[in-house]
Amino acid sequence: MSWYDTSFMARQGVARGKAGKSHKISIEDQGRFHYVYGPYVPPVIRVEPGAVVTVETHDAFEGRIQKETDRPSEILNFPYLNPQTGPIHVEGAEKGDCLAVRILSIRPRGPQPVGTTCLLPEFGGLVGTGQTAVLNAPLPERVKKVRLDENGVYWSDKITLPYEPFIGTIGTSPEIEAISSLQPDYYGGNMDLPDVAPGAIIYLPVNTPGALLYLGDCHAIQGDGELCGVAMEMPATVEIQVDLIKGHTIGWPRLETETHIMTIGSARPLEDAARIAYRELVRWVDAETGMGEEEAYMLLTMAGKARLGNMVDPKYTVGTGIAKAYLKR
Amino acid sequence: MSWYDTSFMARQGVARGKAGKSHKISIEDQGRFHYVYGPYVPPVIRVEPGAVVTVETHDAFEGRIQKETDRPSEILNFPYLNPQTGPIHVEGAEKGDCLAVRILSIRPRGPQPVGTTCLLPEFGGLVGTGQTAVLNAPLPERVKKVRLDENGVYWSDKITLPYEPFIGTIGTSPEIEAISSLQPDYYGGNMDLPDVAPGAIIYLPVNTPGALLYLGDCHAIQGDGELCGVAMEMPATVEIQVDLIKGHTIGWPRLETETHIMTIGSARPLEDAARIAYRELVRWVDAETGMGEEEAYMLLTMAGKARLGNMVDPKYTVGTGIAKAYLKR
Amino acid sequence: MSWYDTSFMARQGVARGKAGKSHKISIEDQGRFHYVYGPYVPPVIRVEPGAVVTVETHDAFEGRIQKETDRPSEILNFPYLNPQTGPIHVEGAEKGDCLAVRILSIRPRGPQPVGTTCLLPEFGGLVGTGQTAVLNAPLPERVKKVRLDENGVYWSDKITLPYEPFIGTIGTSPEIEAISSLQPDYYGGNMDLPDVAPGAIIYLPVNTPGALLYLGDCHAIQGDGELCGVAMEMPATVEIQVDLIKGHTIGWPRLETETHIMTIGSARPLEDAARIAYRELVRWVDAETGMGEEEAYMLLTMAGKARLGNMVDPKYTVGTGIAKAYLKR
Amino acid sequence: MSWYDTSFMARQGVARGKAGKSHKISIEDQGRFHYVYGPYVPPVIRVEPGAVVTVETHDAFEGRIQKETDRPSEILNFPYLNPQTGPIHVEGAEKGDCLAVRILSIRPRGPQPVGTTCLLPEFGGLVGTGQTAVLNAPLPERVKKVRLDENGVYWSDKITLPYEPFIGTIGTSPEIEAISSLQPDYYGGNMDLPDVAPGAIIYLPVNTPGALLYLGDCHAIQGDGELCGVAMEMPATVEIQVDLIKGHTIGWPRLETETHIMTIGSARPLEDAARIAYRELVRWVDAETGMGEEEAYMLLTMAGKARLGNMVDPKYTVGTGIAKAYLKR
Repeated sequence: MSWYDTSFMARQGVARGKAGKSHKISIEDQGRFHYVYGPYVPPVIRVEPGAVVTVETHDAFEGRIQKETDRPSEILNFPYLNPQTGPIHVEGAEKGDCLAVRILSIRPRGPQPVGTTCLLPEFGGLVGTGQTAVLNAPLPERVKKVRLDENGVYWSDKITLPYEPFIGTIGTSPEIEAISSLQPDYYGGNMDLPDVAPGAIIYLPVNTPGALLYLGDCHAIQGDGELCGVAMEMPATVEIQVDLIKGHTIGWPRLETETHIMTIGSARPLEDAARIAYRELVRWVDAETGMGEEEAYMLLTMAGKARLGNMVDPKYTVGTGIAKAYLKR
Repeated sequence: MSWYDTSFMARQGVARGKAGKSHKISIEDQGRFHYVYGPYVPPVIRVEPGAVVTVETHDAFEGRIQKETDRPSEILNFPYLNPQTGPIHVEGAEKGDCLAVRILSIRPRGPQPVGTTCLLPEFGGLVGTGQTAVLNAPLPERVKKVRLDENGVYWSDKITLPYEPFIGTIGTSPEIEAISSLQPDYYGGNMDLPDVAPGAIIYLPVNTPGALLYLGDCHAIQGDGELCGVAMEMPATVEIQVDLIKGHTIGWPRLETETHIMTIGSARPLEDAARIAYRELVRWVDAETGMGEEEAYMLLTMAGKARLGNMVDPKYTVGTGIAKAYLKR
Repeated sequence: MSWYDTSFMARQGVARGKAGKSHKISIEDQGRFHYVYGPYVPPVIRVEPGAVVTVETHDAFEGRIQKETDRPSEILNFPYLNPQTGPIHVEGAEKGDCLAVRILSIRPRGPQPVGTTCLLPEFGGLVGTGQTAVLNAPLPERVKKVRLDENGVYWSDKITLPYEPFIGTIGTSPEIEAISSLQPDYYGGNMDLPDVAPGAIIYLPVNTPGALLYLGDCHAIQGDGELCGVAMEMPATVEIQVDLIKGHTIGWPRLETETHIMTIGSARPLEDAARIAYRELVRWVDAETGMGEEEAYMLLTMAGKARLGNMVDPKYTVGTGIAKAYLKR
Repeated sequence: MSWYDTSFMARQGVARGKAGKSHKISIEDQGRFHYVYGPYVPPVIRVEPGAVVTVETHDAFEGRIQKETDRPSEILNFPYLNPQTGPIHVEGAEKGDCLAVRILSIRPRGPQPVGTTCLLPEFGGLVGTGQTAVLNAPLPERVKKVRLDENGVYWSDKITLPYEPFIGTIGTSPEIEAISSLQPDYYGGNMDLPDVAPGAIIYLPVNTPGALLYLGDCHAIQGDGELCGVAMEMPATVEIQVDLIKGHTIGWPRLETETHIMTIGSARPLEDAARIAYRELVRWVDAETGMGEEEAYMLLTMAGKARLGNMVDPKYTVGTGIAKAYLKR
């Protein structure tokens, strides 16, 4: 028996966490990609809870940065960035429900070098930006193309980094807003959180009929904070299994692994992202154990874990978690 | 001769700042109000540059808070807040242009007490919020209805405040996003900046064909920062004159009065809003005078003026200005 | 009768706001200047409440930047910056009291050009700094020496700015800390708030016996935010009158003019400075009028004024005020 | 051979990382504890580089919170909090040098229950505070006393947490400032970073003759961020070994373990703490490998690790690290 059988998804989902019908969304099926999370486009597919969907995603640049001599500022066309596959309409999903997405696998896709990173003008964690507006000259642009496969990320002759793939951008549609896929928020989006990886289940609030799940922006590896703003971007084939928890309202995304539960907040300044995540976790721990919010607050002071997702996007993202072993009243 | 005749609007506008045809958008004309700034709805009216438009706006609560015993948390239905009149399609406007909106008058509308303010749970500058997430209990809800007219705001038996009306929310549509009318951003929106008042011209970036101007959320008076998050909200009749500056690309809203120019930034944390505004102003001063960015930076150190618009919305807003008298190289 | 006769200083001070004995602290009297606000040095003078003290202050660079070809980074010797005159021991002052300092006059001192401003590497509101740490190259250093007198600040051939002098740095000693004179905090310090000007009374918390008042860093003029970090710095002769309010404990500096009361907060991010100031003001308005904190909170939403002092120092400073005319219950 | 033999301390230290003479500072030796990091007190001991010093520390409340019915707000006397043992004068240390402190062991000290945590009014990560000033009522005070030993922290009947001790507050004296031991900064101080644990070497900038090392505030365990502001506080016996790297100037604390190097930044808002730490790390990686700042910036985007130390102190603390395995050019 796997831990999945006792996950929130298995215990509370309409499909009881069981795999249902298989689907595929190829690049060709998708056709036109989307650059906002919103309800104003028709779904690319409709599936039942339990569906296993194989999704082809583009890299964050839609494959347009092809060689190290490319100049991103000339190639990229804001706001048409971070193309998303979807939306996937999940039958029966309504505002106030919770969508569960188990991540089964993430594989790189396409010709080598599959990986791309780069320095973009006025974007990144250690440079002035459009918001942290300065008069200093921007850093020079720079592109690095990197060979990678499921065994490693071949950064240089001497440095091989592990292949630790995850989904950089995933979420549901807001109710009436349509928000850039560059932004993370209460519905998910561009969280750039390395924990959204194979082996995890992410729980997302449903804001609109059908939930309208979007995803894209897979990373082969990323450090905490996604420092320069561009991780090891790759086109990918992602396999997910969706389920639906009816009448289970959550304010912000949550995540579950074999050993931990995690809540995810996105905001500026960064402490507000951490506050959001930790407050959600206080409430979740209390709800699971009945220990009371104050006791949960103190317990997390001792045993809380924080992951810095990104410190570069329009909102910054922090995930906070606690080991399931401590979820006792 | 009025200062308007030498304004940027008069010197550069397609209509040369001259008043053209008159239009009206009544509450009935508008029908359904809008709660996002976006391109996904048809315009309520199409006008030529120079048009004078009389616009009826709702208060931020769409008139639903009617008496002091009302409980806003039961009445208000997020995200259907801050109803906007519009969008107004301005003929000839294209991405990269600049829309000029001269504010001619703002008059209160409807039966007394016309004014509403209130304390909303987890909203405001001196309370924990959804983003500055805390475990403290929220303040109690409270509604205050206030009689007001063009002579004053009758706060209490002893305190009469001046009638200093302005447009709390005004802006153009983003290109592909549809963003809550509660938020201010590069296109304008919920800036809550008291300078957006009769006698001023606001300049807005055009991001989408026709510009798609929205407005609403008039305030009879407001202090710097809109401290509790709800100013003296009122339904209003607003008279504006629009013009179009072709090929004049601005990154953020700008404002002009008889004596000053101002730039407006919105972001979190608050210093980023100020940085955005002041960097835009450095560049504007340099462009007007040719004194160079560094000289402008130093001059603004001596003579810059900052206005705190709001410290309560999803992004905070700061306007920064300088007297036109100092715009000499 | 002057408004001073009804000021808090006159109504509550030990000396009833009356001028007492006159004193002088010349540059020579001072001898060694101080670069921290702390209790670890002996007072330069001891005075009684009511004392009128004429204080000579250095400019923020201790006069070492003498010509426009000077390179500040070679001349300045961190942390020996922002030299302070004092401390002045006020007889009878004890922790929990409030020191009142009425500013009588500020005159420029020394040979022309008296005024200095400059661009310092990694310092200022629109550049990366030691805290907002970026990899961008710093702006070039630059010094501007400016002739000024009590009639004007002669910025350039074409631009004359008004002479609007104030004390950039003033405060009492912390109880056990000794904090850089570059920093503003609860005891005052480097607030760079233009309202600390002739005609105003500033109220400071007393944290240690004798209060230990320091001051320096006079500016001939400064814009909101002190954008590049260096205002129109000048050596000055400052005339102040001190008084002492026994048993009146305030958390942060306060200010009074003929028409307004103001509270001053310093923190990062900037919204926290505004929150501190406005919360102090809510409480002050409530204490003066008995209207209750929530009513004061709502009233300040309509009638509060905010001044951005600095957005460049180790903590940012915001002053928030309200007209005395509205201080009615 | 241990990894210590190839540590920076062993390779560059005056004592080559070798253990020298043994010393002890007991509670009685210390006598009066210190509440500021500053140069204004005589050292409690003078040691040579290489010295092994056994240091007895008080808990952050100086042992005054003894039972769960105690009310901290009545017992604690701000600013006399977070008592520090020291300062230790290290012979030969001068401004511009680097002090290396290897942490050998941390053992709890005193009668059970040794551990204390509590909720303090207006202090903590999920409540309004003196800086994030709100009008909400504070949470109730609460004290929890916890039995703990080197085998575990016995949180409740059902939950035993691991004993993972570290030094919450450690640092050198500033040159002329004396700063509250509640604050972390460039010299170390109240970083509350769980990595400052047995098995690690911390490197601290020397700002004043003798370095003047202070330490205290040991924690038996702490989660990321020290959420409620009070970790599992305990009196402790700490064994450290000091060494001195001459002429090696660092801007902020650094840390080394067998597998990683880490840099530590403290600031508000939290993103500035992360920026400081990561910029220092970019420069360190470049200095070690010669790969260039931009390449290091990109590499850290893939392989950087961030630890949230505290989100509750006067400045927040972030440590950022990278595996030594990737330090190849």
